[in-house]
Amino acid sequence: MARKLLEKAGAKIGDLVRIVKSDGSVYEGILMPRYMAFSKPIIVIKLSNGYNIGVRVDDKTVVEVLKTREQILREAAAGAPAVIPLIEEKPPSGPKPRVVIVGTGGTIASRIEYETGAVKPAFSAKELLEAVPEIGFIAEIESEVLFNILSENMRPEMWEKIVDSVAKYIQEGFDGVVVAHGTDTMAYTAAALAFAFQGLPVPIVLVGAQRSSDRPSSDAAFNLHAAVLTAAKAPFAEVVVVMHGEPSDSYALAHRGVRVRKMHTSRRDAFQSINSLPLAKIWPAQNRIEVLLKPLRKRREQELVVKNGFERKVALVKYYPGMDSEIIDFLVDRGYRGIVLEGTGLGHVGEWLIPSIRRAVEEGVVVVMTSQCLFGRVNMNVYTTGRKLLAAGVVPGEDMLPETAFVKLAWALKQFDDINEVKKIMRTNLVGEIAARHTLDVYPRWNHG
Amino acid sequence: MARKLLEKAGAKIGDLVRIVKSDGSVYEGILMPRYMAFSKPIIVIKLSNGYNIGVRVDDKTVVEVLKTREQILREAAAGAPAVIPLIEEKPPSGPKPRVVIVGTGGTIASRIEYETGAVKPAFSAKELLEAVPEIGFIAEIESEVLFNILSENMRPEMWEKIVDSVAKYIQEGFDGVVVAHGTDTMAYTAAALAFAFQGLPVPIVLVGAQRSSDRPSSDAAFNLHAAVLTAAKAPFAEVVVVMHGEPSDSYALAHRGVRVRKMHTSRRDAFQSINSLPLAKIWPAQNRIEVLLKPLRKRREQELVVKNGFERKVALVKYYPGMDSEIIDFLVDRGYRGIVLEGTGLGHVGEWLIPSIRRAVEEGVVVVMTSQCLFGRVNMNVYTTGRKLLAAGVVPGEDMLPETAFVKLAWALKQFDDINEVKKIMRTNLVGEIAARHTLDVYPRWNHG
Repeated sequence: MARKLLEKAGAKIGDLVRIVKSDGSVYEGILMPRYMAFSKPIIVIKLSNGYNIGVRVDDKTVVEVLKTREQILREAAAGAPAVIPLIEEKPPSGPKPRVVIVGTGGTIASRIEYETGAVKPAFSAKELLEAVPEIGFIAEIESEVLFNILSENMRPEMWEKIVDSVAKYIQEGFDGVVVAHGTDTMAYTAAALAFAFQGLPVPIVLVGAQRSSDRPSSDAAFNLHAAVLTAAKAPFAEVVVVMHGEPSDSYALAHRGVRVRKMHTSRRDAFQSINSLPLAKIWPAQNRIEVLLKPLRKRREQELVVKNGFERKVALVKYYPGMDSEIIDFLVDRGYRGIVLEGTGLGHVGEWLIPSIRRAVEEGVVVVMTSQCLFGRVNMNVYTTGRKLLAAGVVPGEDMLPETAFVKLAWALKQFDDINEVKKIMRTNLVGEIAARHTLDVYPRWNHG
Repeated sequence: MARKLLEKAGAKIGDLVRIVKSDGSVYEGILMPRYMAFSKPIIVIKLSNGYNIGVRVDDKTVVEVLKTREQILREAAAGAPAVIPLIEEKPPSGPKPRVVIVGTGGTIASRIEYETGAVKPAFSAKELLEAVPEIGFIAEIESEVLFNILSENMRPEMWEKIVDSVAKYIQEGFDGVVVAHGTDTMAYTAAALAFAFQGLPVPIVLVGAQRSSDRPSSDAAFNLHAAVLTAAKAPFAEVVVVMHGEPSDSYALAHRGVRVRKMHTSRRDAFQSINSLPLAKIWPAQNRIEVLLKPLRKRREQELVVKNGFERKVALVKYYPGMDSEIIDFLVDRGYRGIVLEGTGLGHVGEWLIPSIRRAVEEGVVVVMTSQCLFGRVNMNVYTTGRKLLAAGVVPGEDMLPETAFVKLAWALKQFDDINEVKKIMRTNLVGEIAARHTLDVYPRWNHG
């Protein structure tokens, strides 16, 4: 049936086709190879959002060629935007890297259901390959649904489960791990994994989607493609977040897990490195990875060393004018073991908080200072307030993001019994979270009209 | 004495000169007009940081011309960086706009003491004119030291005092007000003033310095010059923050007080507009103001309407993975009347916080949601968590910065008795803090290597 309709329309693999079903529903996309649809009465097309769907057809269905593959390639060469899928008949045989995709939930873990178009949380390796067949050309894919939550509901106990699961796959010999994650707290989880894997032989890649896959602007397929490529082929063994680099489907960026932040509520290029360049640029369509920074470790250079465990009684407290010291007192009274302050400027808070901070330190709470500026470095030796805070025992958080310092403190408090060791570790660069110097170009350029 | 030394060296006003004193100390700068030094044995030069200093000379002092003004102008025309001061003999006579500079403290309120080079907190109109004589060409300057604090110690009660002081000067007929302020919390104070002046006939300009005036890289003189120009001449009557637009002394930016954020701990161009272009670009050396946005109000278009007063029992709470609901409970138990949540992504927090948030709302606390992404807009209708939070009574903060929402809530709770009115006001654009749409270019471009 499918073949007959296609022959009648003169449609060839790679052509842009329109399928009009008898119920009036219309589908447009690039005609994909038959191996995807097997023998069912289904035509598989790639939508403009990068996802493949199978359209069930019957003898009342009309298929029409809108553009041939040659036309599309010619127009793309002239600069027109275009979806140009790989259209090899089958993935190449022979040994390929092995990549496991661990699902934790979020927009990336949903897909459009074949035929109905409904969004469905589904995540078997087969389903992933059907939705984003490109990844089958890169690697042997396996998958596991670890949990399926919205990432605002992520908690340190789940970080620990993710670490355990990822460690298991690395021990089994996988060449890379992809963790599919909601975008809201993906940067926190990335930092948690970065600290937990103190020795790492292969890349761990967190990936998400800003737009769900039922939207034409979905970034899920592009990001997953880039993430699998990074996990399978990147020359570095680091924990990274891979997401769109710019609004269009040109390149993705691999950001260090300890340097990345979600900087926009909705844009596809929401994730950005702060106080650092991204580690790499990924062009999935060209199968290309460009490394921008000296990697922390190369692939297969290190053995796996896992230091799992995160203290729960740690708080991140953002300072604001007039903030009452009773908030600090409350945390100390409730048995918190660590407080990361998100202060102002070079690392300050209102001086009326200093007695409560001093008391916290005296009771064994580790208090770390970061800046709500986000960019730059705290320097508590410049002004009186900073010097007073240092005297009260506050640990300067150097150029760490507040979120990274929060995760690191939760980790360090669980790894080291000696509080002085924890304080020392907070000021020591472990996995790229602290740098001695910044180049001027890591501060983004705003548009000034 | 000064004249004799200068004649001997053949030095003319505007030349770059080197002064070597008998104690071996060396000063380099542009020779300034004599009216600054009167009859004392002092030569006034402009340092490369924009500040003027007076060097005490005697007959053992050696003066040497390094570059003539003609050379400097020629090289500047060819693109070389240069300090090219105004070198008119005297400020023009005739009526000039009247600008008052209200000092609250911070780096901007210090200056290099003539002769000794020591940094001294000083702020009389005469001292300001001596340090930055350019401002005398723009306006009749008066000044007041309201207080002298580091801005991390700023509190809502001080916002109220600043509002009262500024209102008094506007009532007296001043054409513009400059508020000199530490940079750490300048954006919070700017937002406070923006909400307090619901009717405003002239500009209110907050200005600060990232580098103290004893450093060659000080931005104090350039920023003060730009701020006075804005206060005296800008065609708009809004509350703005005026600071360096880029690292070099080319232009300053006037950011709307409700849209600005200190985004770097130490750079001169630390202040940036978020979710908005800056309101204007200021070229102090060319005496030029370029307005980039449609002003909220034009100069002298509105009468003065002051709505002063800020609720103290308001908290800004940043969410992090695993955050315990006891923190929300504590604030409610302590009688807080407003809580601004800095949630994740489109406006989420862990769903285990929802019962505490619902209880807060039921007890009359206004809870507003913003995003720690900073860029973009909250949208609580997309995912389940957002919808549950809306059902619990959380007010979406639209595209407001968390800091702006915090200040606005403190203000609104004091201005309106009806809690529903407060909630409505939080979602209503008053002074440019909320916009229906964003252009793509308000998201800065990161360097991706």
